[in-house]
Amino acid sequence: MPDVVSEIKGAKEASIAMSVLSTETKDSALEAMAKALDFNRKAILEANSKDMAAAQAMLDSGEISKSMYKRVKIDDTKIDGMIAGIRDVIGLKDPVGETMSALDLDDGLTLYQIRCPIGMLGVIFESRPDVVPQIMSLCLKSGNSVAFKGGREALESIRSLFNILRDAAAGAGVPKEAFVLMESRSDIDSILGLHDYIDLLIPRGSNAFVQYIQTHTKIPVLGHAAGICHVYVDSDCDIEMASQVVLDSKIQYPAVCNATETLLVDSAVADRFLPKMLKMFADNGVEVRGDERVCKTCPSAIPASEEDWNTEYGDLIISVKVVDSLQEAIAFINSHSSHHTDAIMTSDMKKAAAFAKMVDSADVFVNASTRFADGYRFGKGAEVGISTNKIHSRGPVGMEGLMIYKYVLIGNGQVVKEYVGKDAKPFKHTPSEKEYPF
Amino acid sequence: MPDVVSEIKGAKEASIAMSVLSTETKDSALEAMAKALDFNRKAILEANSKDMAAAQAMLDSGEISKSMYKRVKIDDTKIDGMIAGIRDVIGLKDPVGETMSALDLDDGLTLYQIRCPIGMLGVIFESRPDVVPQIMSLCLKSGNSVAFKGGREALESIRSLFNILRDAAAGAGVPKEAFVLMESRSDIDSILGLHDYIDLLIPRGSNAFVQYIQTHTKIPVLGHAAGICHVYVDSDCDIEMASQVVLDSKIQYPAVCNATETLLVDSAVADRFLPKMLKMFADNGVEVRGDERVCKTCPSAIPASEEDWNTEYGDLIISVKVVDSLQEAIAFINSHSSHHTDAIMTSDMKKAAAFAKMVDSADVFVNASTRFADGYRFGKGAEVGISTNKIHSRGPVGMEGLMIYKYVLIGNGQVVKEYVGKDAKPFKHTPSEKEYPF
Repeated sequence: MPDVVSEIKGAKEASIAMSVLSTETKDSALEAMAKALDFNRKAILEANSKDMAAAQAMLDSGEISKSMYKRVKIDDTKIDGMIAGIRDVIGLKDPVGETMSALDLDDGLTLYQIRCPIGMLGVIFESRPDVVPQIMSLCLKSGNSVAFKGGREALESIRSLFNILRDAAAGAGVPKEAFVLMESRSDIDSILGLHDYIDLLIPRGSNAFVQYIQTHTKIPVLGHAAGICHVYVDSDCDIEMASQVVLDSKIQYPAVCNATETLLVDSAVADRFLPKMLKMFADNGVEVRGDERVCKTCPSAIPASEEDWNTEYGDLIISVKVVDSLQEAIAFINSHSSHHTDAIMTSDMKKAAAFAKMVDSADVFVNASTRFADGYRFGKGAEVGISTNKIHSRGPVGMEGLMIYKYVLIGNGQVVKEYVGKDAKPFKHTPSEKEYPF
Repeated sequence: MPDVVSEIKGAKEASIAMSVLSTETKDSALEAMAKALDFNRKAILEANSKDMAAAQAMLDSGEISKSMYKRVKIDDTKIDGMIAGIRDVIGLKDPVGETMSALDLDDGLTLYQIRCPIGMLGVIFESRPDVVPQIMSLCLKSGNSVAFKGGREALESIRSLFNILRDAAAGAGVPKEAFVLMESRSDIDSILGLHDYIDLLIPRGSNAFVQYIQTHTKIPVLGHAAGICHVYVDSDCDIEMASQVVLDSKIQYPAVCNATETLLVDSAVADRFLPKMLKMFADNGVEVRGDERVCKTCPSAIPASEEDWNTEYGDLIISVKVVDSLQEAIAFINSHSSHHTDAIMTSDMKKAAAFAKMVDSADVFVNASTRFADGYRFGKGAEVGISTNKIHSRGPVGMEGLMIYKYVLIGNGQVVKEYVGKDAKPFKHTPSEKEYPF
């Protein structure tokens, strides 16, 4: 077994070769990967059945949750989805080498800003083996190397998928060293220290898992730990529309990060809105934890504790609070939200504008369910993850999150001493008409 | 004296108000800041003279370097420069609220990607008091709050500039709380832990200083620690041009990060190029540390140690190595460069292309001095810093580095349950013609 640190170093070195692969080579490698998954269905399903047997035992002993257990499962429909996903990436435009700007600093001295891959990524994820085809195809198309570490509950499935995909890509001329699979838990701690080789970490999993990664590395981390989303129901709104959107935001898929955890209701509309909404919650099995005013309206509501306003339930539970103004709602959201996705229900576009401008979250929605916060729904094709970072990429992140740029300056012998001091030549700094020659 | 952590929290809160200031308010505040500097010249120069007296003592005792001492000095010309710099920022386009993309997810459901400020910045710098007007004006125009911590060698000057500028901005309607000045060394360690309030740290100073910041915080850091820049002289090049560019790259201002530290020479041109180049180095007082082949050509060269290839001299010293191919040069640069700025001298555009594509640095130059790597020369106006990060912003960073975006989704009651399952409504995902309404 080769040592994981040397494999990572090898992948970082290979990232240079990855960055100069032609679009044709990358697309034919992706097609080979898609075909290889189709050809090797039997092997993949066999590997997965070993995982499922072990996962059953882990589920029985309470080591993993029911939803984690479900996410490990692969069937032919899931393989079809993986294949379709890879072919979607073939359809995405190759971003490498794109000219973002061109500026003539002087005659014969042109500065180009050129899109290029970040380099070497680390993806640490739980359960879902389909992360491997999804992220590997995005990394290949964007010219990045990548190291994976999956959960042990999907070990056999991940290994099978990884080997099939890597070998298919290598057969089409992609450097094999660009893809690394780590299998031991201790590998995670080894790679968290490799900030000289790994340029970006993408953790996908539970809050605690992502937080652990964030607090134990100097490598930049793209992702989100919590998803504490809010809906604010303004006094000027269509009550029926608001209640439907709130219900969808809460119950359409309560386990995920873009489900709503806290409902804020303007006091001017509380009497008309709350009884109807609370009945809908009751009818759909949603437990309500309310502030004082909510509990007065609805005696069946459980009084919310301070902790409730900072809790991601991921379940059929919602905290509900009455506020006296839009300003109070915005301030409350800015201090309790995880800055993921927050929505306002209003027919007053001035209030919608204030909410959109002043709520400091990656996604701010007006009259739509928080559940729309998702790479696929946002039209990004494949999704790298959802980021609550304030730099680089925010919200649902597609391939653009795997790119950076470099400045290429092309001259004919210019020296700085001529552009400084008393008789300094002036810079032109005019947009260039010249096409990037490389 | 108010506690610095509460001041930072206050500035973070004020960042929301900063993000919605109108362009008119911001520009009139900037003009007021420029006028206030002009009006208060006497107070600024008096404060600076106190610093200069203390700095003289620190210089005498060896606590600070001569170049640090020089950077503390303010005179009327420097104040003119600060005023001109603020007025340049007035001329920059307000980036807040710019629509980056607009996509119709469905009829009546449009997703806008809107440029917005990052939020709250921390700027930690040494010596140069002119960082305060420069960064404060950029933060104001981009709608960010900012906390400063300068070096104690410029304490009085920084305090004077900060108070004059903050008061002038406040008089024009900018929240005073958005700007914080920290004065105690222990404040640095306090703020390094404030990742819940500070969104981005910008350290400007020595390598050791920036590295200390980078290794002691979870807050993203924008900047660079080292500046180990290379020039590679290819076999196909104009010898006279190459020697002039190498000399400029080394001696035009050797103390700065974009000065060249290592010269690589292709063996095919070494016999013609090196004697001339080494004589130019000798004539200009540059000490040469060479590999075996260089020392053979030039007996006066000092043999380079392994350490020399990873050293930023910041002085009239250069390490010189002979390589046998473009590939060797690229591999050497990728493992020894600080990924700041590296240049090739060649008349072969194929080799230039390979170098530009495969050298993994923020700035890759063809036939131009590494000294051009600078925000002003790159036409950015004011510069935030130079970044060797692989995400967000790379190379010289202007106001664009202080911006992120949010997604604003505007609907009329859409719920996700209609877009999933058997009879799912399809998404349109077509570029939207609709103008962003807020």
